[in-house]
Amino acid sequence: MPYVQQIEGCFTDTLGGHGLARARYDALLRATAPALDALRSYHADGSLPLLRLPAETDDLTALAPIAEAHRKRFTEVVVLGTGGSSLGGQTLCALADAGFGPRPGAPRLRFVDNVDPYTLALLTDSPALDRTGFIVISKSGSTAETLSQFFVCFAALQKRVGKQAASHFTAITEPGDNVLRRLAKRHGIATLDHDPKVGGRYSVLSLVGLLPAMIAGLDAGAVRKGAAEVLAPVLARRPPAEIAPAIGAALSVGLAQDCGATTTVLMPYVDRLAYLGLWFRQLWAESLGKRGHGTTPVNALGTVDQHSQLQLYLDGPRDKLFTVAMLECAGSGGRVDPALADDKSLGYIAGRTIGDLMDAEQRATAATLIRNGRPTRILRLDRLDERVMGALMMHYMLETIIAAHLLGVDPFDQPAVEEGKVLTRQYLAEMAGAKS
Amino acid sequence: MPYVQQIEGCFTDTLGGHGLARARYDALLRATAPALDALRSYHADGSLPLLRLPAETDDLTALAPIAEAHRKRFTEVVVLGTGGSSLGGQTLCALADAGFGPRPGAPRLRFVDNVDPYTLALLTDSPALDRTGFIVISKSGSTAETLSQFFVCFAALQKRVGKQAASHFTAITEPGDNVLRRLAKRHGIATLDHDPKVGGRYSVLSLVGLLPAMIAGLDAGAVRKGAAEVLAPVLARRPPAEIAPAIGAALSVGLAQDCGATTTVLMPYVDRLAYLGLWFRQLWAESLGKRGHGTTPVNALGTVDQHSQLQLYLDGPRDKLFTVAMLECAGSGGRVDPALADDKSLGYIAGRTIGDLMDAEQRATAATLIRNGRPTRILRLDRLDERVMGALMMHYMLETIIAAHLLGVDPFDQPAVEEGKVLTRQYLAEMAGAKS
Repeated sequence: MPYVQQIEGCFTDTLGGHGLARARYDALLRATAPALDALRSYHADGSLPLLRLPAETDDLTALAPIAEAHRKRFTEVVVLGTGGSSLGGQTLCALADAGFGPRPGAPRLRFVDNVDPYTLALLTDSPALDRTGFIVISKSGSTAETLSQFFVCFAALQKRVGKQAASHFTAITEPGDNVLRRLAKRHGIATLDHDPKVGGRYSVLSLVGLLPAMIAGLDAGAVRKGAAEVLAPVLARRPPAEIAPAIGAALSVGLAQDCGATTTVLMPYVDRLAYLGLWFRQLWAESLGKRGHGTTPVNALGTVDQHSQLQLYLDGPRDKLFTVAMLECAGSGGRVDPALADDKSLGYIAGRTIGDLMDAEQRATAATLIRNGRPTRILRLDRLDERVMGALMMHYMLETIIAAHLLGVDPFDQPAVEEGKVLTRQYLAEMAGAKS
Repeated sequence: MPYVQQIEGCFTDTLGGHGLARARYDALLRATAPALDALRSYHADGSLPLLRLPAETDDLTALAPIAEAHRKRFTEVVVLGTGGSSLGGQTLCALADAGFGPRPGAPRLRFVDNVDPYTLALLTDSPALDRTGFIVISKSGSTAETLSQFFVCFAALQKRVGKQAASHFTAITEPGDNVLRRLAKRHGIATLDHDPKVGGRYSVLSLVGLLPAMIAGLDAGAVRKGAAEVLAPVLARRPPAEIAPAIGAALSVGLAQDCGATTTVLMPYVDRLAYLGLWFRQLWAESLGKRGHGTTPVNALGTVDQHSQLQLYLDGPRDKLFTVAMLECAGSGGRVDPALADDKSLGYIAGRTIGDLMDAEQRATAATLIRNGRPTRILRLDRLDERVMGALMMHYMLETIIAAHLLGVDPFDQPAVEEGKVLTRQYLAEMAGAKS
C-alpha cells in the first residue's frame, strides 16, 4: 500500500481513558459491512463510475494530446470552476508546483474559484492573457460563478485576439443540453464530457482533476494506480479490518458519537499536501453535513500550525480527531552546517538536515497529542508522488462514503445550498430592477 | 469607523430560538468592563506596547529607508519565520499581491514558514537567489525552524555570492543576548529589535508585520491609523455597547457557553482577505485554547466555500458562530455582456458585473445562515485598503484579549506547546546518536 494507517492513538487504553472503546470500534467496523457490499455492487453494476475510473486508461489516451496542446501553446492555463470543479485539480497540481513556478516545459496553472472583481481584473488585464488557455468546468453547465468568470474572460480575450479567443477555451460539462454547452457550441469552443454520475467532489480521478494535472506534467495513470490499490481490498472482499477506509470511517463515526469529537483535523506536514486538506474539507463537509450530522473538517499544516493551532489542540476542548500525515524525510534537504551552527545551544540541529527536523517535528507532534489524551491517527508515507496522492484521495472518498452509510445520510447530495442560490438570483434581480 | 459590525443575526429572537438570549448578552457586555479598564491601564503604563503602536510614527520613519533599500536591490524578498513572525505580514502583503505578482517596483514577497526540505530546495536552487533578500524573524532568537531555515539559506547564498551573503539578510529579534543575535553579529548581518513585550501573534503592527508590508509597497501609517480608530473608543472610555471588539467578545463567549458554539468561522469573501483567516486562527487558538477553554477557529472564503462548506454550515450540527466579512462591491469588476449572455436562462446575470454577483452572494449567504437559525455576525466594509485591514486586525486583537478576560485565561502565553519542542530535540538527538 502507498501509505500506512496507524490507529493505536485513538483508543481509551492508549489515551488514558479519553478515546474510543475497543469493543465499540469493533462493532462499528463490523457495521461497515453493508457499506462495503454496496460499494462492490456499485462497482459491479457501474452505477458509481468513481469506482471504475481507477482501472480506465482509454480516456487518458484521448486526453494526452489535449494536454500536450495546452503545454505547447500556452504559458499560463487558468481553470475556471469552483468547489469540486477546482479543488481536486489544485490538490494534484500542488505536486508539480509548490509555489516556486511550474515544471520546465509546463505552463503555470491557476485555479480561479472565486468571483472577486479585483482578482479577475488582474487576470484579464494581465499581459500574459494572450498566451493563456482556459479550462471552464461546470458539471451542470449552469454554475453562476463559473459562467460569469467565463463571460468576463472570454470578452477580455476577444478584445485582445478577436475570433481566435474561442481556441483558447475548453469546456468540461455534462452531455445533453445545458447553458455552457450551448455557449460553447455557438462560439466554437471545444467541449469535453463530464460524467453525469461523477459528482464534483468525487471527480478528481476523472478529466476534471486529471486534465489540469496532465497539463502540469504529472502522471495521471499513476494517480489512478494509487487509487486502484486502495480500492482493491474492497473489491477482493477482504474483511473490514484490512480495509483502511473502513477503519477510518469506524474511527471517525465512533469518536464523534461516543467521545464528542465534533471536529476532524487533517494535518499533513509537507507543503505539497497543503491543498489536500482543502479538498478533504469539501468532500467531508458536503457529504456528511446534513440533518444535524457530520463533523467539521479543519485543514492544518505542520510545522506552521504547531506555532498557531497546537496550543488549542493540546490544551483546549477535547472535541477533535487528529490525522497527522507524515512523509518520511529524515536525511533529505539541506544540512545545517556545524561550522555555522557551532553555538553551544544548537547541538540539537548542528549537522542535521531540514528533513531530519521535519521528521522529528511530525513524530513529536503526534506523540504529544497522544500523550495529552487527544485521539490521533497517523498516515505514514514513505514517498510523495502521483501514486501516493491518488491513494490518499481514494482513501478519503471511500472513508467518506462508508461514514455516510454508518450515519444514514446520502454522501452524494447537498440539498441545503439551494436556498442561497435562489436568494442570490433574487438580489441580482433587485439590483437590475433598481438600475433600470 | 472603517467597518460596521452587525450582530442582529446572533440572537434568539432573530434565530427562531437558536441564538443568544438578549439578557445574557447584556450581562456579558457589562462583564467586559474590567477587561476594558485593564486595556486602559496597560495603555497608560505602557505595559502592553501593542496599544501604543497605533500612535507611533518614529519607528516607521526609521524603517522607510530599510524598506526602500530592499525594494531597490532585490527582486524577491523571503521572510523566514513561523507563526506570529509570518502570518501578520502575509495578511498585510495580500493587499499588494493577490496572486498575480507584486506591485510595479516592488519585489515579490514570499513567506517561508515551514521546514519542508522540498520547498526549501526549490528556494535555494532558484536562479533568483542572488537577487533575493531575506528577513529572518524570531522573537526569542532560538526558534528551531527559523534558525534551520536561516542556516540553509545563508549557506546557499554564501556559495553563490561569497562574503556578500550577509548583506542579503536582516534579522529581527529581541534585544539582549540570544542565538540569532549572536549569529547576526558574527556574520555582520543587520539586526532590528523585536519588542520583547509584543508577542508574536500580536506583532503585526510592529516592524514584524510592517517592514514586509512596506517592502511590498503598502502604507504602514494607514495600517496603524485604522488600528487607532478601533482602539479610540476604548481609550475614550466609551461604554462597552459602543466598542466593537467588546461586543464581539461578549457574543463569542456567550454563544460558546450558552449555545454550544464550539467553532468560530471567519468567512470573508474577497481573495485579499483570505489570509486574515489564517492570522486570526493563530490569534484566537493560541490566546484562548487553554485549560479546556477556547473555541476552534475556522477560516473560510466565499464564494469558494459556498461550494464546499455551506452545506455543513446550514444543515450540520448547530455548533458554530459565523462572521461574514462583506466588502461592498456592487458595480465593480467586469460586466457580463448581455450580447454574450443572451441565453434565456441567464437573465439574472446578463448586464450585471462580477462585483454585483459577489455582492449578492455574500448577502445571500448571511441571510440564509440567519434564516436557518445559525448565529451570524456581519462585518461590512465599504472599501478594502491598509486602513481597513489595520482596523480589522486591531478589532480581533482586542476582541481576543477581552474574550480571554471573560474566560479567565491568559491571552499572552502558550504553555502547552513546550512539550512537543522538547520531544523534537530528543528525537533529533536520537538521530544524531544513531548516525554517529
